[in-house]
Amino acid sequence: VSEQTIRPTTYAYTFGRYEEPVATVRPGEIVAIYTEDAFNSRVKSTADLPTKVNRWPYLNPQTGPIWVEGAHPGDTLVVELLSIEPTRDFVVSAFIPGVGGIVASENTPMLNEPLPEQVFIYPLQNGSVHLSDSVRIPYEPFLGTIGTAPEIEAVSSLTPGPFGGNMDIPDVAPGSTIRIPISVEGGFFFIGDAHAAQGDGELCGVACEMTACVRLRVGLEDGQVVGVPQIESPTDIMAVGSAKPLEDAVRIAWVNLLEILCRQYGLSRAEAYQLVTQAGRMRVGNVVNPKYSVAARIPKTLLPEPVLRVRG
Amino acid sequence: VSEQTIRPTTYAYTFGRYEEPVATVRPGEIVAIYTEDAFNSRVKSTADLPTKVNRWPYLNPQTGPIWVEGAHPGDTLVVELLSIEPTRDFVVSAFIPGVGGIVASENTPMLNEPLPEQVFIYPLQNGSVHLSDSVRIPYEPFLGTIGTAPEIEAVSSLTPGPFGGNMDIPDVAPGSTIRIPISVEGGFFFIGDAHAAQGDGELCGVACEMTACVRLRVGLEDGQVVGVPQIESPTDIMAVGSAKPLEDAVRIAWVNLLEILCRQYGLSRAEAYQLVTQAGRMRVGNVVNPKYSVAARIPKTLLPEPVLRVRG
Amino acid sequence: VSEQTIRPTTYAYTFGRYEEPVATVRPGEIVAIYTEDAFNSRVKSTADLPTKVNRWPYLNPQTGPIWVEGAHPGDTLVVELLSIEPTRDFVVSAFIPGVGGIVASENTPMLNEPLPEQVFIYPLQNGSVHLSDSVRIPYEPFLGTIGTAPEIEAVSSLTPGPFGGNMDIPDVAPGSTIRIPISVEGGFFFIGDAHAAQGDGELCGVACEMTACVRLRVGLEDGQVVGVPQIESPTDIMAVGSAKPLEDAVRIAWVNLLEILCRQYGLSRAEAYQLVTQAGRMRVGNVVNPKYSVAARIPKTLLPEPVLRVRG
Amino acid sequence: VSEQTIRPTTYAYTFGRYEEPVATVRPGEIVAIYTEDAFNSRVKSTADLPTKVNRWPYLNPQTGPIWVEGAHPGDTLVVELLSIEPTRDFVVSAFIPGVGGIVASENTPMLNEPLPEQVFIYPLQNGSVHLSDSVRIPYEPFLGTIGTAPEIEAVSSLTPGPFGGNMDIPDVAPGSTIRIPISVEGGFFFIGDAHAAQGDGELCGVACEMTACVRLRVGLEDGQVVGVPQIESPTDIMAVGSAKPLEDAVRIAWVNLLEILCRQYGLSRAEAYQLVTQAGRMRVGNVVNPKYSVAARIPKTLLPEPVLRVRG
Repeated sequence: VSEQTIRPTTYAYTFGRYEEPVATVRPGEIVAIYTEDAFNSRVKSTADLPTKVNRWPYLNPQTGPIWVEGAHPGDTLVVELLSIEPTRDFVVSAFIPGVGGIVASENTPMLNEPLPEQVFIYPLQNGSVHLSDSVRIPYEPFLGTIGTAPEIEAVSSLTPGPFGGNMDIPDVAPGSTIRIPISVEGGFFFIGDAHAAQGDGELCGVACEMTACVRLRVGLEDGQVVGVPQIESPTDIMAVGSAKPLEDAVRIAWVNLLEILCRQYGLSRAEAYQLVTQAGRMRVGNVVNPKYSVAARIPKTLLPEPVLRVRG
Repeated sequence: VSEQTIRPTTYAYTFGRYEEPVATVRPGEIVAIYTEDAFNSRVKSTADLPTKVNRWPYLNPQTGPIWVEGAHPGDTLVVELLSIEPTRDFVVSAFIPGVGGIVASENTPMLNEPLPEQVFIYPLQNGSVHLSDSVRIPYEPFLGTIGTAPEIEAVSSLTPGPFGGNMDIPDVAPGSTIRIPISVEGGFFFIGDAHAAQGDGELCGVACEMTACVRLRVGLEDGQVVGVPQIESPTDIMAVGSAKPLEDAVRIAWVNLLEILCRQYGLSRAEAYQLVTQAGRMRVGNVVNPKYSVAARIPKTLLPEPVLRVRG
Repeated sequence: VSEQTIRPTTYAYTFGRYEEPVATVRPGEIVAIYTEDAFNSRVKSTADLPTKVNRWPYLNPQTGPIWVEGAHPGDTLVVELLSIEPTRDFVVSAFIPGVGGIVASENTPMLNEPLPEQVFIYPLQNGSVHLSDSVRIPYEPFLGTIGTAPEIEAVSSLTPGPFGGNMDIPDVAPGSTIRIPISVEGGFFFIGDAHAAQGDGELCGVACEMTACVRLRVGLEDGQVVGVPQIESPTDIMAVGSAKPLEDAVRIAWVNLLEILCRQYGLSRAEAYQLVTQAGRMRVGNVVNPKYSVAARIPKTLLPEPVLRVRG
Repeated sequence: VSEQTIRPTTYAYTFGRYEEPVATVRPGEIVAIYTEDAFNSRVKSTADLPTKVNRWPYLNPQTGPIWVEGAHPGDTLVVELLSIEPTRDFVVSAFIPGVGGIVASENTPMLNEPLPEQVFIYPLQNGSVHLSDSVRIPYEPFLGTIGTAPEIEAVSSLTPGPFGGNMDIPDVAPGSTIRIPISVEGGFFFIGDAHAAQGDGELCGVACEMTACVRLRVGLEDGQVVGVPQIESPTDIMAVGSAKPLEDAVRIAWVNLLEILCRQYGLSRAEAYQLVTQAGRMRVGNVVNPKYSVAARIPKTLLPEPVLRVRG
């Protein structure tokens, strides 16, 4: 049985229901999806400044929308990430004026002068990204952006939200299962923004950006435990909050993880609140996007058997 | 010459370019536009709880989109607000679970229980809103929501941004001129959410909501001085910042007002920064929407003649 | 009867109970208090750069602590501000690297380069501050800093809090009465930081700073209606919130004003919440200090007679 | 040679220079310091509600101040943490009205009702904390609070800052070395608030609180690389930012870690900014204190040999 391969001729720059689906998948099907990099592959050398070779807001192109057969509002999309393979031997990063978490930016404007624009091209070889001859960091690929269409909005692919989007959470990686609320018929599934590696917060706003081939299995579950993206890694369960300020992202992530612990695992509110206080972990995906994303998490070893079975 | 009257049969729930225009206006034309209230006129008594009579996110309906002849991306829409007349003799407000600036909310979730839902119907008589037999506040009408379509996004009518939207700035009132960047052909102009009165911050999230007939003159200017909404009242010029956290809304508002003072009024950066530090005023429109809005302002009496004339 | 005059030989740089009182006042007594400017009067020309002539954190000197006879923890200090007179004919402002609300700062550090340091000396003549030959703004003096000692902390005079401190609220002006919680025996009252004028937010961090003679009457009331500073102007009552982020300052201000409306004026919680939503105003004192300050306010004309009489 | 043991008769509730030192240590000396728990050991059963058995703000008692011989302003205190041993066989946690990161609180007040107060007593046995018969989490002890005296302030032991204080960073653990700026003669060193375990963010505001005996070696270095606490664990170097909003804590942490990478390890600004963007990690200590704390970190394996040697 050959897998379906999705190679779009056009890319989407919003998460929304207004564009024509580029493909259709059935629940249970494994597909191989090709994704562009955040700069539309137009940054190939240090001379290709992002502000010259791209026009805002046409950044971070997504492969999609993909129509999921049988997906109805109120369902949950279940994405098992199987592999993320690079389709070239280098990654790109850049300092871009007005972008970043520890510089004056479009979202946090200041009177200070911006830092100069600068491009970084790093070889991707032997399972590592070569920041320099002496500094190599492991290839730990994940999808910066994954999501479905909101009910009425069309949201820039630079922005995350309850529908997923540009969360930049490194746990959206091979071996993890991601659950995302479905708000429209067909779900309108999108992915993009593969990263070969990224630090917490994605500080300068541009990770190790790459083009990729992503293999995943798509599924559906009836109902939604919570209204935000959930990640199940081999070791942990997580809920993702996307908001500004960062403390609201933190609150959304934890309040939803508590809801999962109570509804799905049968803990009392007090048990759940104590458990996350004493043993929870959180990871900051990004502090650079129009909304920040945080993944609240708890090890599965600390949880009882689920009492609620969502039905696939 | 009779004015055009716009009474939509359908309403818009997003600011975006994806819906069919409901009318067309020419620059210089005066139009009378009818607007719904934030609850689709379904809250008529204290028994009509908003969460029962409305389905989220179908709130705050807008009249539009209105096609503006000759409007091109890069232009500025100029709206002279002439009058806002109520079309009924009462206004409504409500406490809604998960809504408000000083309660746990959807945007700032907490483990605390929500306050009970409650509706308030206030008579609108003799130029005042009757909060009670003894407490009357002046009728000071304005448009809570006004804007154009963003370039690629479709943004919920509950949210403000550089395109305008749900700013809840009381200076968007008769006698003021509002300038809004145009990002798409035809502009896609929307208005709605008329308020008979509102306190700073719109704390519980629901002002004195009314249905209205709004008379205004639409114009166009070439170019954009800044990329955010500007308001010129009889006394002040203002720039509006919409963002979270609130300090980023403050920063966007002031950095853009400085830009106006420098580019349009010829002040040096240091003169402008000193002038706003010593004599600027700011008004907080709302602290309840998905983004907060702040209007930074300076009295026109403190300004020289403009050096830059935008061309109408 | 001659008034007591307080001319300190030493100044305080913290609000706290650890320093020796420089004077004692009795409730009901009118005193004339001399205050230094924020730069210890060491900035007298544009060549006197603040970072050269002052050593951090020895800024914003306060006159005090002043021992208030009979002041006990749990009481309220009542300060009637009678007049603020300048004691020289100029004011100073400055751009200081790392200071300001719309620049990278010590509190919000960024990788961007700071703006150059620059001093501004403005004549204070004929009831106005002369920003330039053509731009004059009215002399509207107030105390940027006023407060008592916290129970156990000693807080930099640059920082505001529930004890008052560096709030930069322009309503702390002649004609207003300020109420501040007392936390230690004797109260330990401090004032300083007189401003000849200031815009909302005090954007660059330095208002029209002046030396002054301040006349005021000190009183005491049993008990505390709320635990934050309250201001009663000729027209309004206000509660001040000081915090970061700015939305928390907003929340503290409004939640305390509601408490005043309920406890002191007999409104129900719903009446109070509706009243401030529809008719409240707020003023942002500063967005530059280690905590920001906001005054939430409501006109006295909209209030019934108080039901709670605090006892003087 | 017998080690010095410090068992205070009085405890400190502020970080400041206003109290008498309880002991003196010499650089190079190993000391055993006993610490109280955050509730002054008054919570021993689930009936001992914190708001009944403690009086605010007398919480989180610190052992100190400890005079460090030869410590001068401008030096760095170097603390090698050797061991943290519990001195009883249980830990305590609690839900306290007005405390916590995902509830309405004193710092983020809301109109919602607080959650009920509740105490949790957990056995500490066989290297784990027994949250219940079935849920055990590993004993991973650390000091929630450690610091020196600020130059002029006395800061509540509930609050963190550049002087250290109540950071709640789990890496302040045996095997780590903590560097803290010294601002006053003698340093005035304090520790307390030992935790047997804690989740990221310390969500309900109370970790697994215990009394402890802490062994550590105190040292001094000339000069300060940066003005915030630094942690060196067996694997990582870290800089700690403490501030609100949380994004400012993030900014302080990263800007200071970049400064360390540039000054101490000889990286260029661009190299350092890229390295942390692609490979940095961050840990959120708490989102409940008057300021939040974040530790920005980078693995030592990715760093070259230091070029700057601070002198011990």
